[in-house]
Amino acid sequence: MVAGISVPRIEGMAKIRGEERYASDITGSKILWAVARRAGTPSGILRSLGDEPASMDGVVAVCKADSIEGENLLGILELDQPVLVPLGGRIRYRGDPVAVVVADTRERAEAAARALTVEIDPLPAVFDPLEALSPEAPVLYPGREGGNLLASGWVRRGDVRSVLEDCDLMEYDVFRFPMQEHAYLETESGVALYDGEVLEMEVSTQNPWRDRDELSRALGLPRERIRVKAPCLGGGFGGKDGVVIQGLLGAAAMTCPGRAVKMVFSREESFLCSPKRHSSVTEMTLGCSSDGTLRAIKCRFTLDSGAYSSMSVPVLTNGLDHCCGGYRFEAVELEGRAVYTNNPFGGAFRAFGAPQVMGALEQLVDRLAKRLGADPLAFRKKNGLVRGDMNGSGVVLTSTVGAVPCLDRALEQEIWRSRQEWRNSAPEGKARSTGAALICHGQGFGPGIPDFANARIELTEEGRFRLYSGIPDMGQGNGSTYVHLAGESLCQERDRFDLVQPDTDRSLRSGPAAASRTTYIYGRALLAAVDELKRRMYVKAGMVLGAREDDLALLPGKVRCISSGRELPLKGLAGFMEPPERCSVAGSLAPVSFPGPETDYGPKSSGFPHCIFSWAVHIARVEVDLLTGQVSVPRYLAITEAGRVVDPQMYRQQIEGGVAQGLGYALFEDFSVKNGEVASKDLSTYIVPTSMDLPEVECLAVELDEPSGPKGLKGLGELPLIGPLPAVANGLAHICGPLTVSPFTAERVFFSLSGGTIDEDRV
Amino acid sequence: MVAGISVPRIEGMAKIRGEERYASDITGSKILWAVARRAGTPSGILRSLGDEPASMDGVVAVCKADSIEGENLLGILELDQPVLVPLGGRIRYRGDPVAVVVADTRERAEAAARALTVEIDPLPAVFDPLEALSPEAPVLYPGREGGNLLASGWVRRGDVRSVLEDCDLMEYDVFRFPMQEHAYLETESGVALYDGEVLEMEVSTQNPWRDRDELSRALGLPRERIRVKAPCLGGGFGGKDGVVIQGLLGAAAMTCPGRAVKMVFSREESFLCSPKRHSSVTEMTLGCSSDGTLRAIKCRFTLDSGAYSSMSVPVLTNGLDHCCGGYRFEAVELEGRAVYTNNPFGGAFRAFGAPQVMGALEQLVDRLAKRLGADPLAFRKKNGLVRGDMNGSGVVLTSTVGAVPCLDRALEQEIWRSRQEWRNSAPEGKARSTGAALICHGQGFGPGIPDFANARIELTEEGRFRLYSGIPDMGQGNGSTYVHLAGESLCQERDRFDLVQPDTDRSLRSGPAAASRTTYIYGRALLAAVDELKRRMYVKAGMVLGAREDDLALLPGKVRCISSGRELPLKGLAGFMEPPERCSVAGSLAPVSFPGPETDYGPKSSGFPHCIFSWAVHIARVEVDLLTGQVSVPRYLAITEAGRVVDPQMYRQQIEGGVAQGLGYALFEDFSVKNGEVASKDLSTYIVPTSMDLPEVECLAVELDEPSGPKGLKGLGELPLIGPLPAVANGLAHICGPLTVSPFTAERVFFSLSGGTIDEDRV
Repeated sequence: MVAGISVPRIEGMAKIRGEERYASDITGSKILWAVARRAGTPSGILRSLGDEPASMDGVVAVCKADSIEGENLLGILELDQPVLVPLGGRIRYRGDPVAVVVADTRERAEAAARALTVEIDPLPAVFDPLEALSPEAPVLYPGREGGNLLASGWVRRGDVRSVLEDCDLMEYDVFRFPMQEHAYLETESGVALYDGEVLEMEVSTQNPWRDRDELSRALGLPRERIRVKAPCLGGGFGGKDGVVIQGLLGAAAMTCPGRAVKMVFSREESFLCSPKRHSSVTEMTLGCSSDGTLRAIKCRFTLDSGAYSSMSVPVLTNGLDHCCGGYRFEAVELEGRAVYTNNPFGGAFRAFGAPQVMGALEQLVDRLAKRLGADPLAFRKKNGLVRGDMNGSGVVLTSTVGAVPCLDRALEQEIWRSRQEWRNSAPEGKARSTGAALICHGQGFGPGIPDFANARIELTEEGRFRLYSGIPDMGQGNGSTYVHLAGESLCQERDRFDLVQPDTDRSLRSGPAAASRTTYIYGRALLAAVDELKRRMYVKAGMVLGAREDDLALLPGKVRCISSGRELPLKGLAGFMEPPERCSVAGSLAPVSFPGPETDYGPKSSGFPHCIFSWAVHIARVEVDLLTGQVSVPRYLAITEAGRVVDPQMYRQQIEGGVAQGLGYALFEDFSVKNGEVASKDLSTYIVPTSMDLPEVECLAVELDEPSGPKGLKGLGELPLIGPLPAVANGLAHICGPLTVSPFTAERVFFSLSGGTIDEDRV
Repeated sequence: MVAGISVPRIEGMAKIRGEERYASDITGSKILWAVARRAGTPSGILRSLGDEPASMDGVVAVCKADSIEGENLLGILELDQPVLVPLGGRIRYRGDPVAVVVADTRERAEAAARALTVEIDPLPAVFDPLEALSPEAPVLYPGREGGNLLASGWVRRGDVRSVLEDCDLMEYDVFRFPMQEHAYLETESGVALYDGEVLEMEVSTQNPWRDRDELSRALGLPRERIRVKAPCLGGGFGGKDGVVIQGLLGAAAMTCPGRAVKMVFSREESFLCSPKRHSSVTEMTLGCSSDGTLRAIKCRFTLDSGAYSSMSVPVLTNGLDHCCGGYRFEAVELEGRAVYTNNPFGGAFRAFGAPQVMGALEQLVDRLAKRLGADPLAFRKKNGLVRGDMNGSGVVLTSTVGAVPCLDRALEQEIWRSRQEWRNSAPEGKARSTGAALICHGQGFGPGIPDFANARIELTEEGRFRLYSGIPDMGQGNGSTYVHLAGESLCQERDRFDLVQPDTDRSLRSGPAAASRTTYIYGRALLAAVDELKRRMYVKAGMVLGAREDDLALLPGKVRCISSGRELPLKGLAGFMEPPERCSVAGSLAPVSFPGPETDYGPKSSGFPHCIFSWAVHIARVEVDLLTGQVSVPRYLAITEAGRVVDPQMYRQQIEGGVAQGLGYALFEDFSVKNGEVASKDLSTYIVPTSMDLPEVECLAVELDEPSGPKGLKGLGELPLIGPLPAVANGLAHICGPLTVSPFTAERVFFSLSGGTIDEDRV
């Protein structure tokens, strides 16, 4: 295996054959099923719970808050979410769980959970984050300092007011983007067994180690008595980065010691109770001079955090960090707020925070270019960040900066050069246009949150390599890429590797599958561990073969002494090595950066700001049916700079998947919540685009070499999701004017075409 | 500047504007001109030289062998070539120089050289290398052990005879490829000045240091009294790797102390007297089993070395090293011979030795595939070397091996998949076909010849960077790439660099611009020197700014303390550093490999065998006019693996240039020598293709990461020249049957079409 070409995925055949075992596939005749009962009302006090399930057929246990011996509270930064709401406790959204019923079949558990009588004293509720900030609004956490304002943050440099006054052109608008649902194939699921001593759980999770920490506190078990395993996930996208099902499942298992308990969220439950992309209101002003130099940006955005904090604070800071996109500004004033409401809670979702601000920024940039009569990409290039520039957050960029290289590549593409021809080619009843966007996304955590990984690899007695992945595989194939990197360095083929998926008892703590960090950070740690293992193997092989170490070469299945031609099979070599010698571990800590003193920013402890970014220019051809407003995107090109490409197929697939999810966000997915209730309850009304709805995504890589990355790569997971909304909006703007509310459904586009105003309560 | 995108060449504008000063551009009112008088006869003894020039107008000096105080002998491996043939000395080819005349104008020097009476006693001559080996042939070096057999070499593994007998299919043929002329824009040229103490020379050369060594011995001056500077070359391609004009120029200058002497070869002189690609006769047998497994190869090739050894020995060993191409064989028997004749001498030429054997191999491989009914590329893939395999020379390949990745990419290309449609689309009177070849080329020198470079870079008092290139720039732009690599590492833009072209007094010895080594080996040394310079700059900047070194970042023109925002301009920093502190040097030695004991090979000391190769698959669409035999190549695709791409434009240009030169070798360039006389004396009869004769070359890069290379790259200079001949021949074979004599002129193709035999004396 070498770096630079695709290697078939190590788990690929098992997945194609249906043999890969996901958490939801674990089964057995004696397995018990757990089902949660939800509050069903958005605000109130839990008054009482009935005893109906206890006497129902097949019911083994009913777990309520008082069954839990720990603190019964979950939360990554703020500890605000109960595993189960206690009697007298506060209901803050319709999905709050009040009990879990365990029975011998799923149907019986569901029936029993439904039968449970729940009495709740209703309280006033608030569903709009701007309303929630008014002094009269009902407060979700009485006595909490700050009331419903969960968090706020800012970035300030220069005097924005006076620079804006000095600008020749300004653009201002308010953008509203809705919640988005992860809509993974596999809903939240897992199996847990408590043997009276140890709680063991196999669960669809992006971070088994942090799950263990949260479970330990919430359920009152020491960490060493909890084991969490993360098999392959049927999708994650951030939705499984944090405890959602794990607390209920663990609590349920602890009520039935010795019995395996399984839990799988229904689609409706997943829609209601898993974290969403935060809906947002983004108000932005851009100013530039008549020569096309961007000068000042002012932005204020508000995120609906719903009932619980979850990842809201880092989503907020990530939003701040991406407000200024890929441009230089002399004056910056940004403010972000996250607000509690009685809606489903917002949390991590691929690129979190960035789509909500770049969707606004890239539309305003296009409007300025249009007013100046400039090529929108050339206008971006004029203002594009280069290495050595200070970005919006005050970070001087010293790593690779792909903004201008991607723009250069874009400017020469046929899809861009022929946009006039495309426009003119529209048949009767249709209009055609082309839109583009420059996007970027930071990788890893930034200062304040250590971004580390610890890799472990072993040469086994049989002369094979066992690689312990420390970061779950959500489906993106990072496990396979780890094998690819190790195989390249060890000169071994894929079939000589066994990949162990993350397991708190076997792998080493390496943080979540999140933040575009997995391949970068675990790859760095892994290559260090592999180097150490190689060194030990060469030392031992040198003794056995009587050769100098620089006369040895690792070859598939063996070590060869080059000058003598003598060879030692790896199995033979393993026999000469002690078990600890055959096991190598190494850690890696990602670089962080700090903004200089010119910039005032805060908060200072939520992984903000980033220092390494990946970059892309997305170009969309759009077509609108002028009679119906229906939008289609017949061609889509993503030009991406994310360092070197180690596996072209993996690279492409991340981009294709991100663009699909981004086009869903832009055009189809309308996560509609009314009075805290999800109106689009399942996949029949929440429309996720299928391959029939999407163009083939064309991918071009601009390969800059990132010196800090393993084999020169950078993170790519989140970036591609950001581009479609602004690229499509910029295309549509030529046809129907500005679109500030997404998704751009036929109805909204039709109203815009007819110059009408949109009744947002209707669409 | 970053690695991965193109940077405009540092010398680009100067070249476009005509401001770049080549050796042939150096001029001045007092400059003297030197012109050599050549023997004009292919074999004999120099009896006498007249005195006519001495009394002619403007003649300043006449330099003859007896004016030379040194050994008057040149040669890189074998010391066999006189600077000037002495009286009583042997004439071995028509180009042997007998005197150099120096005059005040070029015209007068030419007239005087022409006027010189030269008496030569003729001797029998031999012009065919196979005849030269017969016991009756006239011997060029009487008394020399081995007679006219300059050198031979071999590779043997397994029992070829018995494996061939066991093969199901065999292919055998004899291939004849002619000499090739470098045909650089700038013929050999230079200016020299001898002040009575020091000989200073500015000359179009690929290796100023080795020139100095050769001149020192031949002219009898200690090395420290010789200075050689290499400005930008107007082409080199190997023809300027070794002393051709330098000896004559130096000898002439030493006859006129205190006067600058200039010498520029005429095109005819360059055609006759510079080294040529060796013409060759290659006899090859391949055997494979009916399942398509290549099993055995037997090859014997003979190179015409002409009158002098020059680079014949390494050309021979490089031929041996490339006989087996990109394939596994269980039995190998190779033999190569280099033979003295009275023809112009063979020497270094881009890819030396490899075209002569791969042009044969790749045709026989295609024939085997055809007989098996296999896709020719799939057949190659089945037998293609992968990392860990032993290649033909017995080297186990442990670096990147791009054979199969390039074949995989080729198999999916439209140009390959549509070859049947292309064939069927031929208009009346034309035939169309598609041919392909898998090629590879080793980089650097291999064991026996240390492959090293020493880089030097300085931070100047003005805060700029002065980079001393150690390897001449033949036009390929390696100097620019050095600036690119250093700029990336130092985070500085191109305009902050001054590039000093190689100069034995200022740069450090780094070997020739040759062997696809320049960017790889000097790049390695340079990055080491840059790292050391950066370290020193950070230490000093840390003291000045009161900052920890890991809190500092190099930015364009300055160093910044990240946490405090304090900045120090590079000029300020330079002021705090002592001159030796600001100058950093570092060396690098390329890795070498040895074949295992399974293989017997020799000679063992000519940089053979290689351990790192670059790879490519070339695909040519050909069209033949059935009435005239005229061949055209309307489409050409080169899929190349040469590690990572640091500068896409430089990468592409090497491939385009190599393919152009290769298509010239395949189709146009017929360097015809009759009785030792060049029949195609200049560019009116020796047809070098122009851009009008060639297709646009499509380039695809397969980027494997070569861990030993600077930024992951490998050498690329020579590889692309090898592909066109076999790719075109394989395409033509479908139309007119096997073509074993090149170039494939209309006349040869026409005869082949009509099933006739070709009278090789006629065409």
